[in-house]
Amino acid sequence: MINKLNLSINSESLLNRLQELGQTGRENDNKLSRVAASYADKAGRDKVVTWMKEAGLEVAIDRIGNIFGTWYGTENRNEEPILLGSHIDTVINAGIYDGCYGVIAGIEVIKVLKKAGFVPTRPIAVAAFTNEEGVRYAPDMMGSLVFAGGLSVDDALATVGTDGTILGEELKRIGYAGTKEPGFLRPHAFIELHVEQGPILDKMGIPIGAVENLQGISWQRVTIKGVANHAGTTPTDMRHDAGLAAARVITYLRDRANASNGKTVETVGTIEFKPNAVNVIPSLATFTVDLRNPNEEKLQEEEKALASYLKELAISEGVSITSEQLVRFQPVDFDEKIVKLIEEVSSEHGLQSRRMTSGAGQDAQMIARVCPSAMIFVPSVNGISHNPKEFTAGTDLVAGANVLLDVVTKLTEAK
Amino acid sequence: MINKLNLSINSESLLNRLQELGQTGRENDNKLSRVAASYADKAGRDKVVTWMKEAGLEVAIDRIGNIFGTWYGTENRNEEPILLGSHIDTVINAGIYDGCYGVIAGIEVIKVLKKAGFVPTRPIAVAAFTNEEGVRYAPDMMGSLVFAGGLSVDDALATVGTDGTILGEELKRIGYAGTKEPGFLRPHAFIELHVEQGPILDKMGIPIGAVENLQGISWQRVTIKGVANHAGTTPTDMRHDAGLAAARVITYLRDRANASNGKTVETVGTIEFKPNAVNVIPSLATFTVDLRNPNEEKLQEEEKALASYLKELAISEGVSITSEQLVRFQPVDFDEKIVKLIEEVSSEHGLQSRRMTSGAGQDAQMIARVCPSAMIFVPSVNGISHNPKEFTAGTDLVAGANVLLDVVTKLTEAK
Repeated sequence: MINKLNLSINSESLLNRLQELGQTGRENDNKLSRVAASYADKAGRDKVVTWMKEAGLEVAIDRIGNIFGTWYGTENRNEEPILLGSHIDTVINAGIYDGCYGVIAGIEVIKVLKKAGFVPTRPIAVAAFTNEEGVRYAPDMMGSLVFAGGLSVDDALATVGTDGTILGEELKRIGYAGTKEPGFLRPHAFIELHVEQGPILDKMGIPIGAVENLQGISWQRVTIKGVANHAGTTPTDMRHDAGLAAARVITYLRDRANASNGKTVETVGTIEFKPNAVNVIPSLATFTVDLRNPNEEKLQEEEKALASYLKELAISEGVSITSEQLVRFQPVDFDEKIVKLIEEVSSEHGLQSRRMTSGAGQDAQMIARVCPSAMIFVPSVNGISHNPKEFTAGTDLVAGANVLLDVVTKLTEAK
Repeated sequence: MINKLNLSINSESLLNRLQELGQTGRENDNKLSRVAASYADKAGRDKVVTWMKEAGLEVAIDRIGNIFGTWYGTENRNEEPILLGSHIDTVINAGIYDGCYGVIAGIEVIKVLKKAGFVPTRPIAVAAFTNEEGVRYAPDMMGSLVFAGGLSVDDALATVGTDGTILGEELKRIGYAGTKEPGFLRPHAFIELHVEQGPILDKMGIPIGAVENLQGISWQRVTIKGVANHAGTTPTDMRHDAGLAAARVITYLRDRANASNGKTVETVGTIEFKPNAVNVIPSLATFTVDLRNPNEEKLQEEEKALASYLKELAISEGVSITSEQLVRFQPVDFDEKIVKLIEEVSSEHGLQSRRMTSGAGQDAQMIARVCPSAMIFVPSVNGISHNPKEFTAGTDLVAGANVLLDVVTKLTEAK
């Protein structure tokens, strides 16, 4: 008996709906691209709303287009709900699990509880937050950020997309410009079930991640100015090679990551040299640095170490270096009680679990501002994400949803 | 008395003509761009031909458009001439010295010898070779390469330019498709006077470079394939970061250059990452390597060292690496006797000289295939070249031309 009611979610429904939603919004080229507030997004939203209504949930849309389906009991209408969910918008040419899994599993959890006659002490709600991916409109995690009061709804609606459209107008166009003020619903707690989007659980063969925190993120753009000169006629000791200096930064960052005991990750994902000619020493190198650490102090240490290194390097290579902060998010600690509960429930299910850090940004990091929050991860095969090859085995998807089911049960059962 | 005849070139004429040719072929934006076989090039050629004729030289144009102006004496018509010269085509937005200096100084040398009644044992000729820069038509140093028999004239004339034009047709259009077979003139020796295009003489305050050899050049394109993954969710020890691997190659090459005692220079001038996104580990890094060394064995050593390093790196970073040869020129040794003569003459003139390697490609490297050849360098301020800021002081230009004058005198005087 894995919970008092000995319940399991309907695995067939969960897996079928993931496939069905995953077929919704495909382009003619058969690529899945449900970017926020597109017609493809509308098609996905319509499906979710239909499923919510079929499950007897009260559907509400807020002004930023977040969808909430709530199961109110007769006795619990005045209580703060337990909120589940995630997002259903996708990147361009996406996989079918990222986000959708948490929304569909949330609905499945409520369905089975209702069917079993469970009487929760609080309402249970499922959210599908708008524009988590941020592909068309920046910033990402916008719907949850607005919901948590971190960005005004009017500013968010005025966002101009990469295609020149305005988010507010597009939400109207697809029929998802709701009337509720964001934050109208005050959650008692939030639990986001999600695929890991990284390789750790898969490589270790562990089915459940109890996500205890989320990495802080520091993005910088570094610009190094050297002197363009002839590749043949300029002796090495007279060079001011911006490209070499950039390479030194990249290897330095990897040395720092290696020394951090797996805590810090760093990535130089973009680079550009100028004039970018085979036989000209680069006069300019521009690259981005993505630094992440789940501890704010450590993240600041990494930023300071990089800044000092850039100063030394400017002197040793005779170049000038500037850096510009592009993005900065503090790490987020999730709620210890819920994380423990996830571990306990996993253990009751005979499932090994592992405390984890979320390396990716998530809606839960925004909702953590307004209520105790946590996440449950299930394995992603080879860690592949934002890619049609994103894959999680059905058994893992079902196991994760059943852990969510019991966590919700324990949080809402009468003591 | 710096030579038997105590002659000096006409410094005013040399410097004025450099300025005059430097103003010829400027675009509306006032940038100097006399790319090969353009109307701007024609304007420059017309000027050189006029100056040759004014100096009483017999002008001949060969099929690839090389211009030769030869001073034949009554007694020396059957002797192989001493050939001077360089080229007058330019890069886009060029300086005024590169190439032009050697052509104009050659004419000035003959002018002063004729005026002084000098009777050379051999004809003295000045060449302006077609398309040294290779901006519009590849390869560079084409005219001298064809002259030396390294490329057939028909193949060269069929070259399609970056603008879709055919070199042979363009030469006809500007009136410089000559009738002489390239190589019709067999030089006894070739001496090219040129600005250094590098910083060594300028930084060391030495007026004359006695160029003893020319670096071999090895260009490769290296492609590293890693695995694209999420910058946040992928632990460092699970990464296959093509960008990091590229950075390791760049720093490795610099270490090799540093260890070579100034002999090897290496440059990574171009780079590209894919997908080139801030938060995605690069799956692909492509970059070029420019390796140069004046010794063929050493250059091969550098190539081998790089190849071994790439193999090790592929294993240590879990990436795959391929490399493709783009360009390969063996080093060229210039004629030791002429180089010594340049040193001796410099010393007689009270000018410090320095044995040097040409880091850039030069017409002389092609002509060295058919006759003893050497180069004289004069300083380039800050080593700037292929740029409107290219500059050599008038005193240095005159000193270099006077060294050329005496070298030619010594090579052609009756014993």
